[in-house]
Amino acid sequence: MTPPDDQFRADVAALDAADPLAPFRARFTLPGYVIYLDGNSLGALPRDTPSRVASVMHDEWGTGLIRSWNSADWIGAPQRVGGKIAQLIGAQSHEVVVADSTSVNLHKLIVAALDARPDRHVVLSEPGNFPTDLYMAQTATRLVGHGRRLEVASRDTLVDQITSDTALVLLTHVHYKTADLFDMAAVTAAAHANGALVLWDLSHSVGAVPLDLNGCHADLAVGCGYKFLNGGPGAPAFLFVAERHHAALCSPMGGWMGHARPFAFVDDYEPAPGIDRFLCGTPPILAVAALESGVDLHLEVDMQVVAAKSRALAQLFIDRVEAQCAAYGVTLVGPPRGAPRGSHVSFRHDEGYAIMQALIARGVIGDFRAPDIMRFGLTPLYLRYADVAEAAEILTEVLRTEAWSADEYQVRHAVT
Amino acid sequence: MTPPDDQFRADVAALDAADPLAPFRARFTLPGYVIYLDGNSLGALPRDTPSRVASVMHDEWGTGLIRSWNSADWIGAPQRVGGKIAQLIGAQSHEVVVADSTSVNLHKLIVAALDARPDRHVVLSEPGNFPTDLYMAQTATRLVGHGRRLEVASRDTLVDQITSDTALVLLTHVHYKTADLFDMAAVTAAAHANGALVLWDLSHSVGAVPLDLNGCHADLAVGCGYKFLNGGPGAPAFLFVAERHHAALCSPMGGWMGHARPFAFVDDYEPAPGIDRFLCGTPPILAVAALESGVDLHLEVDMQVVAAKSRALAQLFIDRVEAQCAAYGVTLVGPPRGAPRGSHVSFRHDEGYAIMQALIARGVIGDFRAPDIMRFGLTPLYLRYADVAEAAEILTEVLRTEAWSADEYQVRHAVT
Repeated sequence: MTPPDDQFRADVAALDAADPLAPFRARFTLPGYVIYLDGNSLGALPRDTPSRVASVMHDEWGTGLIRSWNSADWIGAPQRVGGKIAQLIGAQSHEVVVADSTSVNLHKLIVAALDARPDRHVVLSEPGNFPTDLYMAQTATRLVGHGRRLEVASRDTLVDQITSDTALVLLTHVHYKTADLFDMAAVTAAAHANGALVLWDLSHSVGAVPLDLNGCHADLAVGCGYKFLNGGPGAPAFLFVAERHHAALCSPMGGWMGHARPFAFVDDYEPAPGIDRFLCGTPPILAVAALESGVDLHLEVDMQVVAAKSRALAQLFIDRVEAQCAAYGVTLVGPPRGAPRGSHVSFRHDEGYAIMQALIARGVIGDFRAPDIMRFGLTPLYLRYADVAEAAEILTEVLRTEAWSADEYQVRHAVT
Repeated sequence: MTPPDDQFRADVAALDAADPLAPFRARFTLPGYVIYLDGNSLGALPRDTPSRVASVMHDEWGTGLIRSWNSADWIGAPQRVGGKIAQLIGAQSHEVVVADSTSVNLHKLIVAALDARPDRHVVLSEPGNFPTDLYMAQTATRLVGHGRRLEVASRDTLVDQITSDTALVLLTHVHYKTADLFDMAAVTAAAHANGALVLWDLSHSVGAVPLDLNGCHADLAVGCGYKFLNGGPGAPAFLFVAERHHAALCSPMGGWMGHARPFAFVDDYEPAPGIDRFLCGTPPILAVAALESGVDLHLEVDMQVVAAKSRALAQLFIDRVEAQCAAYGVTLVGPPRGAPRGSHVSFRHDEGYAIMQALIARGVIGDFRAPDIMRFGLTPLYLRYADVAEAAEILTEVLRTEAWSADEYQVRHAVT
């Protein structure tokens, strides 16, 4: 009879052997000595990206110079890459553009939504939403004034707090700490029933879970390019405005790239007719090229297949950690095993910060979120089942030997 | 006796031979068959930039992954590169950050200024200012409300229009079409005498003309990274807030990177104490790396030497074009020969669009600005006197043969 550990290893190897996404690992550049469980914070480098960015630098910028705005279609890049992202989120191509950062796009859409609901006062979110979402709502409501304000309600009571005074419901679809998932269709319907709009932050969803914005009758969305889309550190973000809102909603930031005729150089702002009005300044072409390279990879895969592998990776990791680490005080946070979730898994431990530093020192890169959350991103395009199994073993070893309490792991924590 | 044209060529060759900036041309990658007179729209590619960006991609992103936020100091990039730009504009390093686009930075600072002058109603600019400056002021004043509005006054009457109701004077230091230059110290003093703030757009100044923001007691400034700073297409922009305003002015866009403790992940926005509060989302690291490469080149040169060569290039070009092309209806726009100016030269001609297309087809790349302006950027780091002289010859040839009227040059115009 095969010993249990050998059997486990054989099972894991069989999962990898049968994985339809296994060939995609070779499409990324990963350091060999690392198990990277932080692709939900900064996605790994696609193998094609450096040569694509180099070509933009040498051929388009260096040789084409100013002419590349037309000849290389730099001017169309926000719409072109936005149209590709649209395919990943259940939107029409003319409903999405790449622009600015997630934070800046939140500002545009929060203000636009308040403008579209002038008699309502409340932007409703949840406590513990990703900080920039709450901060942008606080500063945007203060700016718009007239009693506008952010209110928060915990997710179990949130739908009941949507009233005739709610202008906008602002939620992150997959919670950045816990991987809890909102039911997009249900929350959107509840908001619409009360005449409110909904703005979904898809930063931890896009490229990670299947999305169907138009199927859910979503109004507005923003999302991040540098997590599951593998667009590079600080990659440009995107925004979605449902076609039915194009005529009524306006950006509070009327930059020249959002003008109806940017190159007429007239003195008066006139918003472009469609989604283009939510562009602002000149698009960052090198960064958009890197993002496009990451997005193109995702267009080769079926998001349902990605999501199925994400669920399987999560179950494997949760099972192994709970079986081996619960005795050391490690507790699962967020959705229980098998429940709908985003593509990361978080555990709580009082010494989570020190344990994460010990893991990183051993090549298992996750991240820590105050006060006590160890977060592990599961990226089906470049993670093997064997990686996740080994990470669980190393976590067990760290806990068993109390290696996390040693002074040597006092490293500054990394950034989302 | 030497024939006049031979003498002219010898004079031009002597200027190039004596040019202290001549070695810098080799620091850029330029196509051999082109005379590039559009570096004021998109600066040329520095030779070091591709390898620096490649290193960020391979070593920092690919290998360092999330750890590079600390180990490669990505997190400090906005302040580090801002501090370098500060040296070019007469600011202290902690008064400048790289962030977002020029348009987005205009939004932040226009709103912040209106907030700081709550009893005043007017943002004062000039008609024909660069469109995004006017547009951002129109949308920002409408957003702040309470009677706030943009007013414009022609530059000969502008100072007299600054009153006790002026919150902010918003001007572009070097005019994008004409290269007309405001007297920064004088306008700033006039604004201050009336209790108003001034926001200078340095997009066509930084890297082109010497600047001394603090010597002029400037309050606020923004500027562009992709023109004379050679930061790449759509490079990140920068903003300046004088130290004395740091405590009172707040960004209307409270993104997490502008928070006092971004990684505490608390729910309430608390602005960072200094210039950092004007950061918003996650900085675009690849784009910032390309910008830093361009900025570093400028730190090797004395801006007075750059400005002296710019003046000499402008005089050579103006002299030659006026002598040879005035008879064909070409008229200088903006400052007369020898007067203070920015680092581009513009001429008016009724057929300016077609003439510019004919020039571009012959490898002389300038740009056209509606309705009738041909604009030629003079970038002392990579232009030779011989280039400018040859461009004037080719312009003369186009006019003399009326080549510009041929159908073959119907090309779409390029983008600023």
